[in-house]
Amino acid sequence: MTGRARVYLLDGGTLVIDGYHLYWNVGPGGPVRFPCYSVLVDHPEGKFLFDTGYDLAHVRKVLPFELPEQTADQTIPGQLRQLGIDPGEITHVINSHYHFDHVGGNKYCTAAVTLAHERELRASHDHQPFERLGYSDLSFDEIGPRYELLTGDTEIARGLHVFETPGHTAGHVSFMVELSGRRPMLFAGDAIYTRQSLERTIISGFHYDPVASVASMRRLASLAAEHEAELFFSHDAESFREWQTAPAYHT
Amino acid sequence: MTGRARVYLLDGGTLVIDGYHLYWNVGPGGPVRFPCYSVLVDHPEGKFLFDTGYDLAHVRKVLPFELPEQTADQTIPGQLRQLGIDPGEITHVINSHYHFDHVGGNKYCTAAVTLAHERELRASHDHQPFERLGYSDLSFDEIGPRYELLTGDTEIARGLHVFETPGHTAGHVSFMVELSGRRPMLFAGDAIYTRQSLERTIISGFHYDPVASVASMRRLASLAAEHEAELFFSHDAESFREWQTAPAYHT
Repeated sequence: MTGRARVYLLDGGTLVIDGYHLYWNVGPGGPVRFPCYSVLVDHPEGKFLFDTGYDLAHVRKVLPFELPEQTADQTIPGQLRQLGIDPGEITHVINSHYHFDHVGGNKYCTAAVTLAHERELRASHDHQPFERLGYSDLSFDEIGPRYELLTGDTEIARGLHVFETPGHTAGHVSFMVELSGRRPMLFAGDAIYTRQSLERTIISGFHYDPVASVASMRRLASLAAEHEAELFFSHDAESFREWQTAPAYHT
Repeated sequence: MTGRARVYLLDGGTLVIDGYHLYWNVGPGGPVRFPCYSVLVDHPEGKFLFDTGYDLAHVRKVLPFELPEQTADQTIPGQLRQLGIDPGEITHVINSHYHFDHVGGNKYCTAAVTLAHERELRASHDHQPFERLGYSDLSFDEIGPRYELLTGDTEIARGLHVFETPGHTAGHVSFMVELSGRRPMLFAGDAIYTRQSLERTIISGFHYDPVASVASMRRLASLAAEHEAELFFSHDAESFREWQTAPAYHT
């Protein structure tokens, strides 16, 4: 892998869900505040964004009970600004899935190609009744992006791997970045919310297919072992505090 | 249908779950106390039990957080005693599924044939990690019952219909009783917890396949319309208060 790639974790603010949603059927219940973040890979072949957080106005309007806390600096434009990057410079956007808290910033990346898993794109438009709130922000689709459809595991650029990890949603994917200066970074997305989710094999209470969710969690553990990669969980407050976030980067 | 069949609703006490389990992804959260009940059909071809409630000692030991409230009169032996029936007289037991709160009294019916859906019986022995507590009381299996395996929709005796309604568990079934003096009684089992579950298409937070759960809920609504049947929900405190329970009966 080229030594020039840099990975930035972009802080996107926080939301609150009930403990029974974080740890399905286990809990304990009660409010839990957790981080949302995105991943920028500044790569010789382009500027890749994996996930784009939530849109504050959308959450305030549609899911105010998730008690969003997000400053202007924690939006995609705000996070990129501190790196001297304009959202129009993003060449590729890929989302773990199309739930509102992973797509809110897509709409700013007007010049990007959106790499979409074909099952996920379909699911976002033809979802189950219990997925209504998850797929409530389709602004990413309404701006008329240029799509390239993915299916199967794909290396989308040198050292950038997309792995199918369905269950949380129909077409969920995870993302691995190979770097020259450290071991690979494997972003689980919502296939694994927290370290405890993994250690106790507890999937989240939002899901399309819980049996597939368990299998995907196990697949990620296996992929991490195989590639000697570090796993990054999607919504783990404790882990997030320990990680280096932008403007610091991993290389 | 013969006019001699009688249906008794057997009160099995109550349990408590969180509102996010009752109404998945909707809530509101917080403790909700709900009834468990069984159905006795005293029929010309035998005495049929559909579901058998929970075993108090088991719940106190394994799931004390569900705060069981059950008197001796609310056990299967207690409920049958008030009708002058010994559990040994039960000829057939059928369970909507093998979760602990639907099988606790099977073990008293030592002379009964257990009509088991083959997928459900298999699932109870080879379950997903998230189903551990659901399938925590396998006492029904350990006593060595005589099984007859079911698959597909089946009329198990004249006017007694078993319908496949998977999703809550892999092999969940619902049960319809045709009677001469009133419209058919369609016992949804955990395919529909409450009237509100049905009206708002909200499945419960315990499930094996949520997509199938939604389809089964819709199937039951369609079956009820087709047979002009009354739907009975599994865990609806408000509905349960309005229903006639044993020693009163439906005929």
